[in-house]
Amino acid sequence: MSRSADLENILPLDVDIYDLVIIGAGSAGISAAKQLQKTDYKYLLVEHGEGGTTCAQTGCMPSKALIEISKRLHQCKSLINDKIINSVDIKVDTSNVLKKVRHLRDHFVEKAKSNSAKHPLLRGHAEFVDANTIDVDGRKIYAKSFILACGSRPRILKEFEKVQSKILTTDNIFELEVLPSSIAIIGIGVIGIELMQAFLRLGVKIQIFEEYNSIAGIQDEKVLRYAVKILQQKFPINFNTKINNIVENESTFTIEWSEASATVDQVLLCVGRESNLDQLKLERLGIDISKGIGNIYNPNTLQVGDFPLYVAGDASSQNMVVHEASEEARIAIYNATHIRKKTLNKPLLHIVFTDPPIARIGSTLKDLSDNNYIVGEFDFSTQGRALIMGQNDGIVRIYVHPGNNCILGAEMIAPGADNFAHILMLAIQHKLTIQDLLQLPVYHPVLEEGLRLALVDANKKLKIKGNCLVLS
Amino acid sequence: MSRSADLENILPLDVDIYDLVIIGAGSAGISAAKQLQKTDYKYLLVEHGEGGTTCAQTGCMPSKALIEISKRLHQCKSLINDKIINSVDIKVDTSNVLKKVRHLRDHFVEKAKSNSAKHPLLRGHAEFVDANTIDVDGRKIYAKSFILACGSRPRILKEFEKVQSKILTTDNIFELEVLPSSIAIIGIGVIGIELMQAFLRLGVKIQIFEEYNSIAGIQDEKVLRYAVKILQQKFPINFNTKINNIVENESTFTIEWSEASATVDQVLLCVGRESNLDQLKLERLGIDISKGIGNIYNPNTLQVGDFPLYVAGDASSQNMVVHEASEEARIAIYNATHIRKKTLNKPLLHIVFTDPPIARIGSTLKDLSDNNYIVGEFDFSTQGRALIMGQNDGIVRIYVHPGNNCILGAEMIAPGADNFAHILMLAIQHKLTIQDLLQLPVYHPVLEEGLRLALVDANKKLKIKGNCLVLS
Repeated sequence: MSRSADLENILPLDVDIYDLVIIGAGSAGISAAKQLQKTDYKYLLVEHGEGGTTCAQTGCMPSKALIEISKRLHQCKSLINDKIINSVDIKVDTSNVLKKVRHLRDHFVEKAKSNSAKHPLLRGHAEFVDANTIDVDGRKIYAKSFILACGSRPRILKEFEKVQSKILTTDNIFELEVLPSSIAIIGIGVIGIELMQAFLRLGVKIQIFEEYNSIAGIQDEKVLRYAVKILQQKFPINFNTKINNIVENESTFTIEWSEASATVDQVLLCVGRESNLDQLKLERLGIDISKGIGNIYNPNTLQVGDFPLYVAGDASSQNMVVHEASEEARIAIYNATHIRKKTLNKPLLHIVFTDPPIARIGSTLKDLSDNNYIVGEFDFSTQGRALIMGQNDGIVRIYVHPGNNCILGAEMIAPGADNFAHILMLAIQHKLTIQDLLQLPVYHPVLEEGLRLALVDANKKLKIKGNCLVLS
Repeated sequence: MSRSADLENILPLDVDIYDLVIIGAGSAGISAAKQLQKTDYKYLLVEHGEGGTTCAQTGCMPSKALIEISKRLHQCKSLINDKIINSVDIKVDTSNVLKKVRHLRDHFVEKAKSNSAKHPLLRGHAEFVDANTIDVDGRKIYAKSFILACGSRPRILKEFEKVQSKILTTDNIFELEVLPSSIAIIGIGVIGIELMQAFLRLGVKIQIFEEYNSIAGIQDEKVLRYAVKILQQKFPINFNTKINNIVENESTFTIEWSEASATVDQVLLCVGRESNLDQLKLERLGIDISKGIGNIYNPNTLQVGDFPLYVAGDASSQNMVVHEASEEARIAIYNATHIRKKTLNKPLLHIVFTDPPIARIGSTLKDLSDNNYIVGEFDFSTQGRALIMGQNDGIVRIYVHPGNNCILGAEMIAPGADNFAHILMLAIQHKLTIQDLLQLPVYHPVLEEGLRLALVDANKKLKIKGNCLVLS
């Protein structure tokens, strides 16, 4: 029996009635719907576009496919350098690179679509009429609660608005027939740095402009220095550089900044993403979204004011990563269906799939501003397995509490960082000490031996502080 | 002050006196010496050969270097298949492959030698005179205790003794100038399967002969089926096949078994390794080594009978892996210097570096013969990141106790298995439940999402058994 049955008598006949309506059939929306499938709640997914998640369409998946191909190409060239294969001149067919990327992308999009097709789905653009009613292309839908999982779009800087339809964002870059021979990348956040490295390896000339002094949000100065050294290979990254103007030429663009200008074939704008919450006409409920999406909802419960509205996924404009979208969907559904609200618990786990990867876990140095921590550190330049892989460049820095010897957090750019991140996250969740982790057997030869040496370094420093847990 | 000073008065003048003498400057020996360096014990390393560990000389390191090159070549070919690079014909120069392997190998050997050079070191062959005295090429050395870390050598089957100097083992394979065009591999244990895949990818024709029905010691039938399917690509593995005879021809070898015979350019014998303990003249102390090395020492304390002798590393003929050698060295040193003995605690962690890797952790199915377990399983054929990597082939099987929901063990052949092994090992050590592990955030898209789905599967099966820990 539907729990909304009791409401059917008091509403006009042309209104559809649901317990929950989920706006957006992306990663968060599908995840929310999956939660409801097991229950007797009457629910509906409303999807504006073609379906297929941002992750599958323009995000995680096509970018990883591109990264994988570019990494293989890079390693293939290492075989030529070592005279292991004698190939006169390797020519990259970027048209086939992009075809392969789209082939994989389409697979993931189909999978996402078939996941959303498992649920009652209405196609159309949703706008709020009142706190319990949306209008979907003229059709009124009533629900006790709404999950706002309407996703995000690439942010367009003011200076770039005039050429918006001509330049690249992640929305259209994977649709290219061939890669341009030169690209200016604006913004060296997560997406910028991942794509930069891939394009560079695929033979594209790259120029980078970054408004701040940062790569992919790295907060530890020493890790940032390593990242710059490792990733800034053939070109300088123009840090602290704001673009003043962009001029469209016949088949190129000229980028102008305070010091100089440069002409490139194409421009890739990746200065972050914006929530699509502004497209739901929330202002009709008296909600002021002009001061930023972050201000309209409670970041712990995900509830928008006292309304029966709960934000999940990219729409929340928080970290915009898939595993958090799922977790937000879980909390949003719980809180939409319970009077006593649960609080979102999202320990920081962030990975950037450069080569080597960048990872950030638990508390960052900014969180640890009280200076009550020691740092266990390891430089990968002499690590055995990394040497064999030709990837002996990187640093792991682990922050440890000198009182209880527990791991507080870590930041790193290192081969295997994506794996280390999960091990350290598990250690943080279960309040494991440095000694606990040092008792973990580590096979030989693996990259995790480098992680272990960072822990050994931490243990030594605790010893100096008189807090060492002696291993014997 | 040396603790052995009190002994100097009662011994002949031509005898050197130590607290501890370590026989063998390999991984276990160097590890043992490192333990002593921090103490005031008077110790000595005795090394028969040139130095440089088995791991660095002929084991882990050169094999991983070969595997890495062959993997890159394999991936390079995938770029050609996808028409991403247009190279007419990739020719592999196996002479440069082997040069590169030796170049890396030499680096690791030098590192091992410089590690042993940090300790008092005597070159020569050690033989026991009595339980406290060895003779090293005519020089008498006295010690209160000895660490027997004299390593191992490739086992030579009886049928192959007559061609022993002509065929290949890991002792000489990395010394080859070029790879033969065809190799018969005898024994498909850890080394056999790793080298088989590498040679195959480097263009060598391979024939495999295995006396038993097993690959790299896999114990779970289902994992074994996957391993056979994945690894047995262009050739059948001749399981349950014992070689009856080998005939040396002018420049080839003919291998004869019950059903047929085959002629190949070279033969690689890898049917395990044998302890070198038989070369120390332990029989002079009344120790009978004829019934196997495993019978002469206590596997928990590593002590040989009541003698002041402690076995460590490959010499113990236990698992013969480097991280266990270090742990054994630690326990051997402790027990040699303490009256109350410690017990060796070596949770099973075993990894085979095939592509995808094989891993075995904690309790195996043989250990769990009481049937009180459920299996959480995941097949990697549709896993997102694995698909992108073109490595979507594999299975993870996790054994879970249906009473307390803790992880008992796991066996797998899967991309990322080497990383999963360490995460699961940490979970086993800290008695984490399936629920604990399901609360670990997993980034997207990573291979660990596949591990998570095996845990989800386990959770579902616990639910059926009424033991599910509901996640909410």
